[in-house]
Amino acid sequence: MRDVVVIGVGMTKFGKFLDRTLQDMGQEAIWKAIEDSGVQARDIQVAYFSNSLAGLITGQEAVRGQIVLRHSGLGGIPVINVENACASGTTAFRGACLEVASGAYDVALAVGVEKLFCGDTARSLRALGTNSEIELAMMGFQFTAYYALQLRKYMKEYGATKELFARIAVKNSYNGSLNPYAQHQKVLTVEEVLNSRPISDPLTLYMCSSMSDGAAAAIVCTRKKSRQFTSGPLINVASCVLKAGLYRKPGDTSIPNTVTLVAREAYEKAGIDPKDVNVAEVHDAMAPVELLRCEELLLCGKGEAIAMFEQGRTQINGDIPVDPSGGLSARGHPVGATGLGQITEIVWQLRGTAGAHQVHNPRVGLTQNSGGRVEEDTAATSVTILKK
Amino acid sequence: MRDVVVIGVGMTKFGKFLDRTLQDMGQEAIWKAIEDSGVQARDIQVAYFSNSLAGLITGQEAVRGQIVLRHSGLGGIPVINVENACASGTTAFRGACLEVASGAYDVALAVGVEKLFCGDTARSLRALGTNSEIELAMMGFQFTAYYALQLRKYMKEYGATKELFARIAVKNSYNGSLNPYAQHQKVLTVEEVLNSRPISDPLTLYMCSSMSDGAAAAIVCTRKKSRQFTSGPLINVASCVLKAGLYRKPGDTSIPNTVTLVAREAYEKAGIDPKDVNVAEVHDAMAPVELLRCEELLLCGKGEAIAMFEQGRTQINGDIPVDPSGGLSARGHPVGATGLGQITEIVWQLRGTAGAHQVHNPRVGLTQNSGGRVEEDTAATSVTILKK
Repeated sequence: MRDVVVIGVGMTKFGKFLDRTLQDMGQEAIWKAIEDSGVQARDIQVAYFSNSLAGLITGQEAVRGQIVLRHSGLGGIPVINVENACASGTTAFRGACLEVASGAYDVALAVGVEKLFCGDTARSLRALGTNSEIELAMMGFQFTAYYALQLRKYMKEYGATKELFARIAVKNSYNGSLNPYAQHQKVLTVEEVLNSRPISDPLTLYMCSSMSDGAAAAIVCTRKKSRQFTSGPLINVASCVLKAGLYRKPGDTSIPNTVTLVAREAYEKAGIDPKDVNVAEVHDAMAPVELLRCEELLLCGKGEAIAMFEQGRTQINGDIPVDPSGGLSARGHPVGATGLGQITEIVWQLRGTAGAHQVHNPRVGLTQNSGGRVEEDTAATSVTILKK
Repeated sequence: MRDVVVIGVGMTKFGKFLDRTLQDMGQEAIWKAIEDSGVQARDIQVAYFSNSLAGLITGQEAVRGQIVLRHSGLGGIPVINVENACASGTTAFRGACLEVASGAYDVALAVGVEKLFCGDTARSLRALGTNSEIELAMMGFQFTAYYALQLRKYMKEYGATKELFARIAVKNSYNGSLNPYAQHQKVLTVEEVLNSRPISDPLTLYMCSSMSDGAAAAIVCTRKKSRQFTSGPLINVASCVLKAGLYRKPGDTSIPNTVTLVAREAYEKAGIDPKDVNVAEVHDAMAPVELLRCEELLLCGKGEAIAMFEQGRTQINGDIPVDPSGGLSARGHPVGATGLGQITEIVWQLRGTAGAHQVHNPRVGLTQNSGGRVEEDTAATSVTILKK
């Protein structure tokens, strides 16, 4: 396999944009990435397009990528439309990296776009169901309830409190306030978070990621060819690992955590130890879930994420900043774009160009992006390690 | 890149199965492929899942592959959901081959499933629209009309007649009658085809592929490892090329044919000449379109497909049998499964196990699978060359 580097990234602001289309947002992200990378559109040899819900939301079910890419100058190349719920973005990124690493192509684009606001909230919420058969028909069970159950277990085991959870949402709202691409830029107070509408105890509205529209893109290239296009900083793709969950069978009382399995493989492939990670964007669809993800990613031991947070270590100026962008709860979570938004953030952090929410001189960054559920396990989880 | 071989294939009968689910059909195809290949479920290291329309038809929009694969014994591996309209199946196959060729994994599964019959024909037809914005909102233009325009041009240029078109549908209905997996097994007469309901002149109902449910799967492996699993015949993946169309811009009056561009690259990568092809499954969504595809694939010159057909060369016992399975019009066209159905057919032909519709001792087989449209061009076209 050949060395792969990210030579360009681009993203739109995430938010509620009723007047923007998938094509409009996708092309903004693509053209920013093209400009950032120094390539011409004709240099791009293959494109991975991620989107999760357009079929149900806009009615565009088939060949979504080709519809978005038309008139972009990117015709006549393989376009692979991929989907993995909230992990669609890194599924696209992994595909683009594999094309380049394998030698199939030298320059690949990954772009993720999602439009959740369509003027019909009920339609958007129906589209967000993970398993139409089980969740909607059999259980009436939504993913907010699933996260709430995980958090209640964590409270019981490690003494975490609802007030602590609120403080994590506050941290991320502060980070988001420094990020011009974030959907939510108001700094929240603990009281505001605790007093916002209850969603599924202990979760309140301001702890949860909201619906979002947006797009993000990355251009990857062989290390060898990259200097033809850019004299700027190269960000190495040290590893990008994706797995579906293990799916419990009747009688399985304990199976390994999928995030941990994926993370171990990502660290090993990247030749690093978890303690080498300097900055992380994790999949905190609900802000306090950040604690669980830090532990599952082995950034600290079981139950230790509480102290890590209390000591300020996960803040922008801490030694292991987590979600400096604001994370899903503040930056926003346009499903198929989220993974590439995380990649874009980490590329900016490693280049030192993240602006007001820049962390101190990181050399190794991580993203964790998970999506969907099949019974009690994640449907798709990925961990990507990027190095300066 | 490493040599990739197909070690197992499996498919369901295609047809109208109101009582079958995506999971049920998908797992039948997978388990037939597993049995055929000699692998165990736990040997499969990565899975590509193709489906085009379940979001709109069954309501299952996200993580379709994981939903189908659950309880199959295939947990804990990367599952990549891909979509490329009617070319989704070979998009999945190409992905599986790239994983193995690149060295990322040694054993990969590609499975395609589609369920078009849902008891609501209007819903199925709406889902089949290629570009919701342009076709439905702006033009009211369906893909049958697009094929009819192509055929009328061909009639004018080369003197093809509607009666000739009907005879191609008859040939394919005969092939389908010999294929137990085919949706339509009745041998049609020229009169029946011509007198069937007009769809879009010159197309009549019996020239067109109909809605279909079904699944097909293939397991690919490195040549090196394949003998751990099977002592059966190995089918080499000589090439598998996928491209989106070139998308005309205002002022483009003539651009190269995408099928021809893709075919040239596939022949070159496989190190063969078009005349080396012994059997072909082409994307004849409308039976007479087979003529155009043969020419675009360079199996004969421009306008020469008429004589090739008249001389009986494309029949099962001809020297270049085309669509021995019955093709899309007789075997059926379950969108996301079609490409893998073609691969399965060619694997059986090369092994000499196709049964009543076996062609004489082929050594090189080809599939052409195309899907979707963006303006006047194909959204995704692939050509796969398999060798004994």
